[in-house]
Amino acid sequence: MAGEFDLIQWIRSRQRRTARVALPAGDDLAVLRWDAGDLLLVGVDQVLDGVHFDARQHSPRQIGRKVMNRNLSDCAAMACLPAAAVVTVALHRGDGIDYARELYLGLQDAAEVFGCQIVGGDTATWDQGLVVTVTILGRSAGIEPITRSGGKPGDGIYVTGPLGGSILGRHMTFAPKVHEARHLAAGGHVHAMIDISDGLSGDLRHLCEAGGVGAVLDEGAIPIHADAVQLSAADFRSPLDHALHDGEDHELLLMADASLPGATRIGSVTAAPGMFLRRADGSQIALTPAAWQHRLD
Amino acid sequence: MAGEFDLIQWIRSRQRRTARVALPAGDDLAVLRWDAGDLLLVGVDQVLDGVHFDARQHSPRQIGRKVMNRNLSDCAAMACLPAAAVVTVALHRGDGIDYARELYLGLQDAAEVFGCQIVGGDTATWDQGLVVTVTILGRSAGIEPITRSGGKPGDGIYVTGPLGGSILGRHMTFAPKVHEARHLAAGGHVHAMIDISDGLSGDLRHLCEAGGVGAVLDEGAIPIHADAVQLSAADFRSPLDHALHDGEDHELLLMADASLPGATRIGSVTAAPGMFLRRADGSQIALTPAAWQHRLD
Repeated sequence: MAGEFDLIQWIRSRQRRTARVALPAGDDLAVLRWDAGDLLLVGVDQVLDGVHFDARQHSPRQIGRKVMNRNLSDCAAMACLPAAAVVTVALHRGDGIDYARELYLGLQDAAEVFGCQIVGGDTATWDQGLVVTVTILGRSAGIEPITRSGGKPGDGIYVTGPLGGSILGRHMTFAPKVHEARHLAAGGHVHAMIDISDGLSGDLRHLCEAGGVGAVLDEGAIPIHADAVQLSAADFRSPLDHALHDGEDHELLLMADASLPGATRIGSVTAAPGMFLRRADGSQIALTPAAWQHRLD
Repeated sequence: MAGEFDLIQWIRSRQRRTARVALPAGDDLAVLRWDAGDLLLVGVDQVLDGVHFDARQHSPRQIGRKVMNRNLSDCAAMACLPAAAVVTVALHRGDGIDYARELYLGLQDAAEVFGCQIVGGDTATWDQGLVVTVTILGRSAGIEPITRSGGKPGDGIYVTGPLGGSILGRHMTFAPKVHEARHLAAGGHVHAMIDISDGLSGDLRHLCEAGGVGAVLDEGAIPIHADAVQLSAADFRSPLDHALHDGEDHELLLMADASLPGATRIGSVTAAPGMFLRRADGSQIALTPAAWQHRLD
């Protein structure tokens, strides 16, 4: 019998008042103070049942964490600090208020790790699948945003962790690399950055296209996650293939003009366009992203 | 065969560069400059096929306009200027890129009326119904935000236009009262404001509960829309009943300590809680919102 207003009351009771929040929740819009000189970074991401998660398999707490962490990882990609978020939930009729609460707790769990407040939202119920959308507001807080487009020929290409096989579970549980990104960006050597959501090959292509550059990766240098090895045994694709093409690792991929502490150099930026993989014997083969994109038909 | 990236390219080609947008689209987050002293107002709203619109009946252009206008109307409710928006679309598989473009054009049509830019978004496709979510960023721009909670006993209650029967079409086509709201708020007499989305009785209750006050409405003073009269002939509910309880008019409802140009006084704020309707003979009856809320079960 619990209704939307009960849920809203419960959510409000969990909100903390901070200096950034000028007016507590309860109006049509949240009111935030924004520090002079802070750039405002804003992005949005949605997760859909059966596309980004499986409501039969994943708990609402897990789903909430994942969608918030995807947005927090977008903040990492640009080296900004998550400041606030707003959320919409389209609940499947029958899921009930306890399900909605668990979802919210998952969202809040993830956000609080970075002091990010959920300041508003909207909930509705329908007969179809669960949809959760998070809009994130980040602030530059003294560090110039890093974009995709700054890569320069001669830069090294770096990655912050082992890749591949996230489908075995890490795609639900990854930790956004916000602090790592800001630490690396503050060093002044990072020219381009992205978080790996479309796979190493796909996101490297994003960086290359945005910067008008090419890339050569060293086959032997790419850190391969144990999950990629495990998955390889089941599907007969090589661990390297998983590391190159699997999505949703959410490690950082960077182009920089000096070595980066805590990151592994996996290749070099080239002036000539195109992406190549250099094998142990020195030969190069073209690196083609397993073209991951949503078809709109 | 058109894919997500083609749509993104097309959307980017339509974006204008303004002083507020520090970095053009193409990264994980949009980067905005925020004026010192401007409060940042943020809210989000979703529309779902079969709940807020009917994709079999309404065109994608209409649907896009509606969801953007709902958000712009939230800006009106707090007397802020819409500055930027981000959008997510969960497309029904098979709708195709032309459908997505029409949706985007509807969103943009509505936003541009107020110089609001769509600065980012996310598109995905699934087998289920269309979902469109808009997050709006507003700025105070010299006018202190008006909240729901400021009503004072003795204030007049005002509404900016005739009410009722929006389901006949106006719920898809209403014009957000952003300029009217800012003009009224700038006069310094408005204590509380909301846009009427849940119906006059429902939104009046929001203002009364937030302000800890009550209200008496004058039955004869409530402006009734011709649509309410037309609908009344079909469903045998009185035009007044439609004006009191129908949702999605998106007129402004205000509490103010002086008469408001362009708005009609429909009643008074009382110290005693509770909402009443004063009839022509002076008798009062309790005014009970046709409790519109989403059930979460």
